[in-house]
Amino acid sequence: MVQTDLKPTLTSLSDFDLKTYLQTKKELVEKALDESLTIEKPEKIYEAMRYSLLAGGKRLRPILCLATAELLSQNEVIAMPTACALEMIHTMSLIHDDLPAMDNDNYRRGRLTNHKVYGEDIAILAGDGLLAYAFEYVAENTKNIPTERIVKVLGILAKAVGANGLVGGQVMDLDCEGKSDVTAETLTSIHRKKTGALLEACVSCGAVLSGASIDDLTRLSIYAQNIGLAFQIIDDILDVTATTEELGKTAGKDISSQKATYPKLWGIQTSQTKAEELVNDAITQLSVYGKKALPLQAIAQYIVKRKN
Amino acid sequence: MVQTDLKPTLTSLSDFDLKTYLQTKKELVEKALDESLTIEKPEKIYEAMRYSLLAGGKRLRPILCLATAELLSQNEVIAMPTACALEMIHTMSLIHDDLPAMDNDNYRRGRLTNHKVYGEDIAILAGDGLLAYAFEYVAENTKNIPTERIVKVLGILAKAVGANGLVGGQVMDLDCEGKSDVTAETLTSIHRKKTGALLEACVSCGAVLSGASIDDLTRLSIYAQNIGLAFQIIDDILDVTATTEELGKTAGKDISSQKATYPKLWGIQTSQTKAEELVNDAITQLSVYGKKALPLQAIAQYIVKRKN
Repeated sequence: MVQTDLKPTLTSLSDFDLKTYLQTKKELVEKALDESLTIEKPEKIYEAMRYSLLAGGKRLRPILCLATAELLSQNEVIAMPTACALEMIHTMSLIHDDLPAMDNDNYRRGRLTNHKVYGEDIAILAGDGLLAYAFEYVAENTKNIPTERIVKVLGILAKAVGANGLVGGQVMDLDCEGKSDVTAETLTSIHRKKTGALLEACVSCGAVLSGASIDDLTRLSIYAQNIGLAFQIIDDILDVTATTEELGKTAGKDISSQKATYPKLWGIQTSQTKAEELVNDAITQLSVYGKKALPLQAIAQYIVKRKN
Repeated sequence: MVQTDLKPTLTSLSDFDLKTYLQTKKELVEKALDESLTIEKPEKIYEAMRYSLLAGGKRLRPILCLATAELLSQNEVIAMPTACALEMIHTMSLIHDDLPAMDNDNYRRGRLTNHKVYGEDIAILAGDGLLAYAFEYVAENTKNIPTERIVKVLGILAKAVGANGLVGGQVMDLDCEGKSDVTAETLTSIHRKKTGALLEACVSCGAVLSGASIDDLTRLSIYAQNIGLAFQIIDDILDVTATTEELGKTAGKDISSQKATYPKLWGIQTSQTKAEELVNDAITQLSVYGKKALPLQAIAQYIVKRKN
């Protein structure tokens, strides 16, 4: 049955206007993020939090969450607080990763990093504040769904950040810096935690909020794991092939910091092929949903085609 | 009615064996904390998290949560995951506050601070990991109570950490360092956020988990705000009067760092009197509960009598 569905889905996939879709959703998310965090006293910390939270970016994580909720329940409104929380968490991880004690980066999304503007102390606290606020925002603003789903979502979000997610991935990443003997297996394990866990949380949360079945959750998890890994492979490729201007962050940094990357392990061509395979698998996973899955499938395809 | 209740309560208060009570609860909490966080891969981050989480201390925050649950529902078991989460959050705030970019402290609870042992990068991540894990632990381990209470507790915990709680208090504190014109009002506002918010969360969470009424919550909030402020006043006094050995952290630091403190604003004697008044008010708030309130009342009294 998956096979018969596959062809028409893929035909319509090429017709799907992803650019307009992403633009529309991005505007919705930007507005919701702007409204989610107003400036109170002490102003400095709210300003620092807003500086990084509203610094643009693709808003891919919230969009994945909204698109999943739309796919399963035709109701993206219920998922907006969680979508915002996912971006808060992602922003926190960027602020802390950029710190001098970590990756020591001066630019992010084309602007100075948080600690370069507000100082290291405030940057650390802005990250802490955003992380805490993500949970507060979901707990206080998710309406009209059974509360057990909210508890489940809060658990998924927290797990994606913790020592088995973002935090653990960053630890492994720091550990591997300068090492020449990092295997593809270790590299994949790093990325599954550092990038994959939160991307998977985006679709899992959207699914749980919509009352997904176990089958839905399994399909969507595989989809997310595949696009997460593909995303990272393409990131590694772009670090070699794109300019700092195109990326909005320092290009060529992986080479200068002797970081293990897929292009180094496999070469650029094999890395690209592997990313494409992962994305095709992700698209096939969702073919059972027919045309409703087009946004998520188009997002998967976009990941291997993007230029930044 | 409060007046007639007051006398017998206070008589029994002097008989209450707080030392045994605190010791028993502390052992329960230590065991629960030890079991809450087992070492997985990557080991380094779990070890860093456990290093600070299991570094001893009074465990006052989890005990306040358990004691409140016991007072209102005679069921402290339902509150143990939240009690552990409160200590995880408290530990996170200590790890981050001790960082070179913040208070730059080398000792905490009589041991080297987290970044002195594991490095700044891991210390930042250990804090992040503990903060995230606090929410995960409550969401996944709180059993046998209505889920709306769990959502409410997660919201309270998050709010206590954020820009209007711990994080905001630390920002204001850093801002006031070296300033000679800090008023008692500003100092109290700092402490209400930096210490008070989490202490209030301890009793509020214990109360919400127990299905507290609005009246219960109001009384317990006043109790917590009072003991929070008294706790801070005594902390300031001890910084002047106690030794580094007694405190387990660097004594006299407030003077050397030109920090605003109550003894500097009011003198030691007036500060002590003010702390005692706050504690007496806190004790009176709970007299309506009769003997069941003895543990919380004795804890309040202990705060002004402690030596570290």
